[in-house]
Amino acid sequence: MADITEQASDTVEAWLKQDSAIDPQKAPRLQALLDEVPLQELIAIVERQNAIRAALALRLLPRRKSIVVFDALDAKHQADIIDELGNADVYEFFDELEPEDRVALLDELPAEIADRLLRSLTKSKRDVTGVVLGYTKGSVGRRMSPEVPGIHPEMSVEEALRTLRAKADELETIYAVPITRADRRLVGVVTLREIFTAEEGTTIGDIMQSPIYANANDDAEETARWFLPLDILALPIVDDSDRLVGLLTWDDAIDIVEAEDSEDSARAGGTEALQQPYLSTPLLKLVKSRIVWLLVLAVSALLTVRVLDAFEDTLAQAVVLSLFIPLLTGTGGNTGNQAATTVTRALALGDVRGRDLLAVLWRELRVGMLLGAVLGLAGLGLATVVYGVDIGLVIGSTLFLICSISATVGGLMPIVAKTIGADPAVFSNPFISTFCDATGLIIYFLIAKSVLGL
Amino acid sequence: MADITEQASDTVEAWLKQDSAIDPQKAPRLQALLDEVPLQELIAIVERQNAIRAALALRLLPRRKSIVVFDALDAKHQADIIDELGNADVYEFFDELEPEDRVALLDELPAEIADRLLRSLTKSKRDVTGVVLGYTKGSVGRRMSPEVPGIHPEMSVEEALRTLRAKADELETIYAVPITRADRRLVGVVTLREIFTAEEGTTIGDIMQSPIYANANDDAEETARWFLPLDILALPIVDDSDRLVGLLTWDDAIDIVEAEDSEDSARAGGTEALQQPYLSTPLLKLVKSRIVWLLVLAVSALLTVRVLDAFEDTLAQAVVLSLFIPLLTGTGGNTGNQAATTVTRALALGDVRGRDLLAVLWRELRVGMLLGAVLGLAGLGLATVVYGVDIGLVIGSTLFLICSISATVGGLMPIVAKTIGADPAVFSNPFISTFCDATGLIIYFLIAKSVLGL
Repeated sequence: MADITEQASDTVEAWLKQDSAIDPQKAPRLQALLDEVPLQELIAIVERQNAIRAALALRLLPRRKSIVVFDALDAKHQADIIDELGNADVYEFFDELEPEDRVALLDELPAEIADRLLRSLTKSKRDVTGVVLGYTKGSVGRRMSPEVPGIHPEMSVEEALRTLRAKADELETIYAVPITRADRRLVGVVTLREIFTAEEGTTIGDIMQSPIYANANDDAEETARWFLPLDILALPIVDDSDRLVGLLTWDDAIDIVEAEDSEDSARAGGTEALQQPYLSTPLLKLVKSRIVWLLVLAVSALLTVRVLDAFEDTLAQAVVLSLFIPLLTGTGGNTGNQAATTVTRALALGDVRGRDLLAVLWRELRVGMLLGAVLGLAGLGLATVVYGVDIGLVIGSTLFLICSISATVGGLMPIVAKTIGADPAVFSNPFISTFCDATGLIIYFLIAKSVLGL
Repeated sequence: MADITEQASDTVEAWLKQDSAIDPQKAPRLQALLDEVPLQELIAIVERQNAIRAALALRLLPRRKSIVVFDALDAKHQADIIDELGNADVYEFFDELEPEDRVALLDELPAEIADRLLRSLTKSKRDVTGVVLGYTKGSVGRRMSPEVPGIHPEMSVEEALRTLRAKADELETIYAVPITRADRRLVGVVTLREIFTAEEGTTIGDIMQSPIYANANDDAEETARWFLPLDILALPIVDDSDRLVGLLTWDDAIDIVEAEDSEDSARAGGTEALQQPYLSTPLLKLVKSRIVWLLVLAVSALLTVRVLDAFEDTLAQAVVLSLFIPLLTGTGGNTGNQAATTVTRALALGDVRGRDLLAVLWRELRVGMLLGAVLGLAGLGLATVVYGVDIGLVIGSTLFLICSISATVGGLMPIVAKTIGADPAVFSNPFISTFCDATGLIIYFLIAKSVLGL
């Protein structure tokens, strides 16, 4: 199978890239080809196209398939594509989305289009969408499925099965079942598997377990992170009076975590996240995602010019000192990055929390000193052989101090950011490099001046 | 609820940190406290403890809870903890793991312990574990659940429901059901929901859909990445004759992706992934995860010393040139990092593939030139005001060239790595910085020599 479909998908991509693909004569052949491509490959192809070509592909696909593909795209990409689709298509795609995906798409659209789309829904669909829209961005409520099954503890398992069967079409999941009392208060959870394998005659109350749940106003990322490792299919979401308002399903939790990981990864490299696939991102959006950071970093780097300016006399007396500037600042930056990357990831995963500040400080200081001892001895040896013992001593002791300080600062910065309510990844690797550069240079010249007696 | 459990979990952590917690007199109180802490919080607490304290907490927990907690830990952490547990506990924890989790743990254990544990299993459990062990590391087969339900197309939905009910205990999932012929060939898939809502009297063959599946020898990361966005609960895995051998469940797919993202994130910062929570990682393991990279990078940075050495005369004639070294190399490194981070993430997500090399080259060249134009003009202006028009011209044109080259090289390196079969993240940010440093310095001095006539 693999060979034929790979050929088909290559051909489809090549055709989409030529404008001639829009040629109505070729459309039927492209359509036939698209039909041969398996679903996961179709999604991958459409993800890589810009909005015009993605819209073309979606129009050529059989309706059921195009809805599944559209559903799998990022909300930003969906919003771009909507601009290129006819109204009828747009209304249908929008109608078929889950309420929480509909809200994610609305967030990316201009207000008047969002309004028009909302008005195109039936009243009941508009109502469930409204529930999700009522919660603030970044909260669990904004990402939950607002449809709940209404299963009560006093129901027999047979009754529960009948109810789930009857409501299966409107529910996003029937596998993880929250149990509520008549006043909608959450009292338990049960899986379809448990209902299914229970003895006849048992009630739901007999087999339900005490619920693990979250509040609709909780942070979406934090909730998704602790919920996923529990291997539960859906997490009940309650309001402040413990009344069930929705479910966070595993697939929505994955989307949340994936988006946050992409954002952390982007920030670590000193860019903003694209929020859509690289190849379908317009060129100017790429520039925009990078230029602000680059300018901020360049301005911070002016600090290093200032530091060096202050030591210009020392430099003029011993030009040899300038040879080691990139090596020393680089090593400091690298050590700081290593610590920052490790701690930022640990914060994201919840392995480290704000109150662990002192524990991290103490770990990173010791790690930095050990790394500094190894590099410092290597530097001492090498520099002594080539440039003499004085330069050797300067380089060795500078490396030791730079590593100790950079690891400590790099490890603490993400925690400090989190404590003051900023994104830990804001202190990105480039930012820490720049900070370590300036500190490292000051240490370097102070040591050089005292050792060389300048 | 939140306040009481937060207090309880704080107290538990504080107690575990004191060695006196092992005091048998205090154990019952710790046990009582542990019982108040919700499951997700228990997992978070145990994840943060070193092996000795984690083993203590696991021993104090009620057996069912401790099994769930142990199951949620990373395999590396599990292996450390096993050293600290009594044999009876170890055998029971090991026995309760899913076959694929058992294999992940075995991979982290010394051969003789792994052997002993395997021999402690019943024959049927040893056999299913053996199926998974038979596939190479990094393949889907190594991560799949080897239990399959044996549902055939000619079965009625009632028969299928009865079969699933009977086998529910041994199956990891009954929600996504692969359909096989008598010779075990995969012919379709159906969800429990579809079986459940089907009309009486229909056969499985009537309602099953054509299967999306993977081969057991496929790469685990790639498969998990394309499978998760499809929002399917389990992916059928087949052997080379299209016979069903297992299922990749959504929770195992998440573990695979999470581990790979942690590895990419670590590499981007120039370290090796810890594969276990930061605070429970021994100090020397932290040093080990960083020192090799740091030494490699320091050795590559010797290149910059060589470049500067070659231009020492130029530097001696115009010491002012040395003031800009960190600014210029830093900007080059940042631009390269931005491109590398973006493309590495796009490769991991499958948005960019090897054959997109030219498309990426062309995008990054244009992005780099645009970034370089902005920074170059800013540099030209600022440097001219402070240091005169000659230096201004040198800085401006160097920034333009450095940005153009760094973005292009930074964008291509991950793709080149992938094409030659290496991990794209091996060309980490620090590595690209070091490369950009050396290139940038050469450009800088060549331009300076020709503009200043040195």
